[in-house]
Amino acid sequence: MPRFSDTSLQNSKPSVDRKNRKKNVKDIKRTNDPAALEMLDYTIENNIITAFDRWSAQQPQCAFGYQGICCRICFAGPCRIKGLEGPGSMGICGAKDYTIVARNAIRMMAGGASAHSDHGRELVEVLYHMSEGKAPDYEIRDADKLKCVAKKIGLEIEGKTDIELAKEVALAAFEDYGRHTSEGTTFLKANLCEKRIKKYEETDTMPRAIDREVVEVMHRTHVGVDADPVNLIFGGVKCSLADLTGEQISTDISDILFGTPKPVMSEANLGVIEPDKVNIILHGHNPVLSQMVVDTARELEDEAKAAGAAGIQLSGICCTGNEVLMRNGVPIATSYMAQELAIATGAVDVCVVDVQCIMPGLRNVCECFNTKLVTTMAISKIPGSYHFSFEDAKAKQSAEGIIRLAIETFKQRKESGRPVQVPQFKNKLMAGFSFEALLDLFAAINPDNPIKVLTDAIIDGEITGVCALAGCNNLEAVYEKSHTDIIKELAKNDVFMVGTGCVMQAAAKQGLMNYEAVEEYAGPGLKKFIDRLYEANKDKLPDKLPLTFHMGSCVDNSRIFNLWTAMANEYGVDVPKVPFVATAPEGMSEKAVAIGTWVIASGIPCHVGAMPPLEGSNLVWSVVTCIAHDVFGGNFILETDPQVAAQKLIEAVKYRAWKLKIHMKTAEEYGTDLCQAF
Amino acid sequence: MPRFSDTSLQNSKPSVDRKNRKKNVKDIKRTNDPAALEMLDYTIENNIITAFDRWSAQQPQCAFGYQGICCRICFAGPCRIKGLEGPGSMGICGAKDYTIVARNAIRMMAGGASAHSDHGRELVEVLYHMSEGKAPDYEIRDADKLKCVAKKIGLEIEGKTDIELAKEVALAAFEDYGRHTSEGTTFLKANLCEKRIKKYEETDTMPRAIDREVVEVMHRTHVGVDADPVNLIFGGVKCSLADLTGEQISTDISDILFGTPKPVMSEANLGVIEPDKVNIILHGHNPVLSQMVVDTARELEDEAKAAGAAGIQLSGICCTGNEVLMRNGVPIATSYMAQELAIATGAVDVCVVDVQCIMPGLRNVCECFNTKLVTTMAISKIPGSYHFSFEDAKAKQSAEGIIRLAIETFKQRKESGRPVQVPQFKNKLMAGFSFEALLDLFAAINPDNPIKVLTDAIIDGEITGVCALAGCNNLEAVYEKSHTDIIKELAKNDVFMVGTGCVMQAAAKQGLMNYEAVEEYAGPGLKKFIDRLYEANKDKLPDKLPLTFHMGSCVDNSRIFNLWTAMANEYGVDVPKVPFVATAPEGMSEKAVAIGTWVIASGIPCHVGAMPPLEGSNLVWSVVTCIAHDVFGGNFILETDPQVAAQKLIEAVKYRAWKLKIHMKTAEEYGTDLCQAF
Repeated sequence: MPRFSDTSLQNSKPSVDRKNRKKNVKDIKRTNDPAALEMLDYTIENNIITAFDRWSAQQPQCAFGYQGICCRICFAGPCRIKGLEGPGSMGICGAKDYTIVARNAIRMMAGGASAHSDHGRELVEVLYHMSEGKAPDYEIRDADKLKCVAKKIGLEIEGKTDIELAKEVALAAFEDYGRHTSEGTTFLKANLCEKRIKKYEETDTMPRAIDREVVEVMHRTHVGVDADPVNLIFGGVKCSLADLTGEQISTDISDILFGTPKPVMSEANLGVIEPDKVNIILHGHNPVLSQMVVDTARELEDEAKAAGAAGIQLSGICCTGNEVLMRNGVPIATSYMAQELAIATGAVDVCVVDVQCIMPGLRNVCECFNTKLVTTMAISKIPGSYHFSFEDAKAKQSAEGIIRLAIETFKQRKESGRPVQVPQFKNKLMAGFSFEALLDLFAAINPDNPIKVLTDAIIDGEITGVCALAGCNNLEAVYEKSHTDIIKELAKNDVFMVGTGCVMQAAAKQGLMNYEAVEEYAGPGLKKFIDRLYEANKDKLPDKLPLTFHMGSCVDNSRIFNLWTAMANEYGVDVPKVPFVATAPEGMSEKAVAIGTWVIASGIPCHVGAMPPLEGSNLVWSVVTCIAHDVFGGNFILETDPQVAAQKLIEAVKYRAWKLKIHMKTAEEYGTDLCQAF
Repeated sequence: MPRFSDTSLQNSKPSVDRKNRKKNVKDIKRTNDPAALEMLDYTIENNIITAFDRWSAQQPQCAFGYQGICCRICFAGPCRIKGLEGPGSMGICGAKDYTIVARNAIRMMAGGASAHSDHGRELVEVLYHMSEGKAPDYEIRDADKLKCVAKKIGLEIEGKTDIELAKEVALAAFEDYGRHTSEGTTFLKANLCEKRIKKYEETDTMPRAIDREVVEVMHRTHVGVDADPVNLIFGGVKCSLADLTGEQISTDISDILFGTPKPVMSEANLGVIEPDKVNIILHGHNPVLSQMVVDTARELEDEAKAAGAAGIQLSGICCTGNEVLMRNGVPIATSYMAQELAIATGAVDVCVVDVQCIMPGLRNVCECFNTKLVTTMAISKIPGSYHFSFEDAKAKQSAEGIIRLAIETFKQRKESGRPVQVPQFKNKLMAGFSFEALLDLFAAINPDNPIKVLTDAIIDGEITGVCALAGCNNLEAVYEKSHTDIIKELAKNDVFMVGTGCVMQAAAKQGLMNYEAVEEYAGPGLKKFIDRLYEANKDKLPDKLPLTFHMGSCVDNSRIFNLWTAMANEYGVDVPKVPFVATAPEGMSEKAVAIGTWVIASGIPCHVGAMPPLEGSNLVWSVVTCIAHDVFGGNFILETDPQVAAQKLIEAVKYRAWKLKIHMKTAEEYGTDLCQAF
């Protein structure tokens, strides 16, 4: 029981003397990433403040907020649950611990759903404007995916041009944001298995329209509305399924506009920054501008050379980084928590950001090194940075402006003769595993029914099951150590790993996304499975397959959802019976809360390695860690110790595989009807 | 400057020894309402915990949260701004005080906009379902208003039945929630004056669709998105104008379905509860069910009598109370902060609630007295209460069930012989002043141009100007004392007062909403103006006119917006030139934050008497109290002392009137072109 393990509140939130941070240096250097460790020595030596310092300065964190029992929803407050009984055990309005914890939690889901689905909306708008001829710099790069998506959502595709179809897909997506009726969001229903549709309809958790579900959560958590924690949480589930709708839209339309990822080689960690080149970091989440920068950089290579550079070196941070890695092999500089450390190398000329997970702290570090911080989105500005207003009607023009600013800055950097500090750490990686790319690998073994390659490998005991790796960075844990510990432990236990987001950047940076890692860490079954896949595909693959399969940015968790749905359909069971688990070892953002919630609502156990603010209510804690399992078949595993977490994940996936094998055997011997009760 | 007055943080948040609450009784009995004072003696004596106790127990409140410098947006936090420099002066991500304060503030606007506009959506759904024959208990009660609204939003009305038109209005309203294009919300644009449309377009604050603006605020405040406080606040303004759209829709469609209010007599304060009758309290905000209860109660009067009751006594709390007061003369029991005190009378049989401002604490008090707490909305439940699921297809059936539950409970109450404690305080009131009803009063003097009666009264110096009274209760102030102090001071200074929400319930309860109050408190000009209005209308009025004109529930602030817009159009100026001010003496809810923001964005100075969480950032403070005035013509006046606040409001309205008179004179003498610069 994680609740009573030694990872309780007091132990996991050590108090650090922030006035004496050099003496407490071991508390600040909370990472196992060698590049980050080198840069932390450098930033501490040079008094450059980073998130690692600020984390330390924030200790001890407020225990009320940490447990979720601080309410600031109206301004009669703030109220805090101060005891178990008496007037101090409630907010001024009478809200108890469970109401406050549940309200705060589902507002986080609303924040996450808003971020993901607004990301999707940006793409829908580009697709729509393109179809109307108003975004001339964009094109349909994957017409097959367009047709596939159109067919899936029920559109007639015969006799239509790609452009006509693109417009219809865009309009159907818009409808998912603003529909006023209650039949459920198209992009979600089109991708769910039948039994999940029924489950969501029965539990009134099928989202009607993305935006509406966010509004409903904000309304029901307003002062004096919903006080029932279970009702609140069901509302949160509905909103999180709206988040999933937005993610599915994001992925589908990104693939249509920019191409569906295929296996690609690259490198990761700060060593990818090349001081003799014009260095541009692409950071944020949305590919609409960054893809344009990638395309344009190729054309402006000569301008860079004319300025004395060896070329233009693009590298990525966070999910914009993942997007351009997946489709173009652009290397990964680093992940969320170390973004300031990338700038502190002094070798970055421009850091271009769009939305989400961009630390405002970047600005100060950029100032130290004459790095130009370029914001691009109207809703995401940072005081003191450069703003290149992105409009899809003139995207290429913006991209050119940004690259030329970088070339100019490169010249200044060279003229200044300022030294740089680039840690010489980087690792080879293979990424690009969209759901389609995975199926393509499987198809080399079983062209008629590709997914059966994966499902059979579990039934045959070659692999234990599948684990999704997802989520953020959170200094409550040691940066990237939970990620790497869990990956190694799962590998040893023959768990096939797919993943997205900052976890996969940790894997990539720390050498866990290449074949060398298979040789070093994979159990015999997993190694055999990966080798077998490679053998069948070796003609078309650039290298041997990796230990962990990178499926994309955090909106691309929709690809993972597509994977387990395909597995459930192949097994002929509902998702909760599929040997599939998920982990967010360093969950941090509201997006992670929304994702985690739809993962458990899908019927998948989901580990989170940093404690979300739920401990203030035993009731809410029980609902998300236990009762959720009874209703949806999935539940949260809240566990801050990565070794313990890995064991729990392995036990959960093994238990499912064991149960499924009996189920399959029973079905084979006695027919599927008889084994339904099992 | 309120910032440096003696109402600073330390003084306004006294610490109370909560273990000794009886000794500190003066701190708990924070009100000037005689009925509440009597009930507080009773609840303290009988150990019944109410909001007044809980407020005391929450002292001292968290100074970080109070100032807005606590961030719980991601769960790497909570983070608190602990100093002016160094790593502790920022959150872990590097967010500074101004970013955190601005993000928290605009999330409050998103909460408010969600509440108000979801309220509106409920009404649109009823209208739509009615037009499709699926809500047979509803009808169009004001066909003139239907036509007027339809025409205003640009629909062709000729040759259409009311039902056809109702459906078109509903669809147009739905469109305002979910439109995917950017031309602005119909219900807002149709009611703005030209210059405000231009202002909102220029400042990119015209809302595109209500739900979308909420989502955008939630997205831009997500970790790592917008860090620019000014950009954030403009986003909040856009969302607040979406709130206004939702309020306009709520009011318009309520009037269509339930009738546009006309002057009506009633009473207010706990003395309206009649122990010998079946007492039903209608509490919350939405008229869709409560209006049905009012209609049905008349029919079931005989059943109540058969059960030994003298009849059925309905009374209202919060804005559901205002809705049924305005249209049916249902008396007001009390306002938000004293809701538990109403139940503590022991004479309430059923308290039926819908959404918003329903204290979860009600449940405990209901348990003490066998009062049945009935929740009715799927998104608003309270553990342990009765739930009558409201569906518009069978609204009347729900209403009957609720009334029969009350009759049954009445019988139990009488059988138990339990004593009741009903304070014998109530006051006569006249309410029902919709915008149309006000114009109707003016039309008796000037049938060709009714609004000119009001605008001329200001130019002629008969009245000083107009003040909108709005907002909630907040025990940071002495309950209802700020309301009554400010009203009396404005009256003395000849300010014509219109209002909504809990302020008007304070006015009603404390005898400031009848003609006696005109005689006692109005300055000579105001008295003359009110007398003049009465004289011209006396044939059709039930009584002499009141001191304060009740315009409805909090969504009916749209009526006040219609009023100042009509005045601006009549003067031929933009709203910031109209001698109009607003005050929320005890602002508390997120709805109040949204309303306050669109009030200042309309160009109206708006006083708030309880401190919103803004003090943690000098920058944000300056933006909302000063810079906002430069951009939009309105600004917040944050002032916790009601006497000082009243003076500031009077000065502001007098200054505007003085300036306007010069403007009008200049325009008359030199033509409007020349005086534009003024």
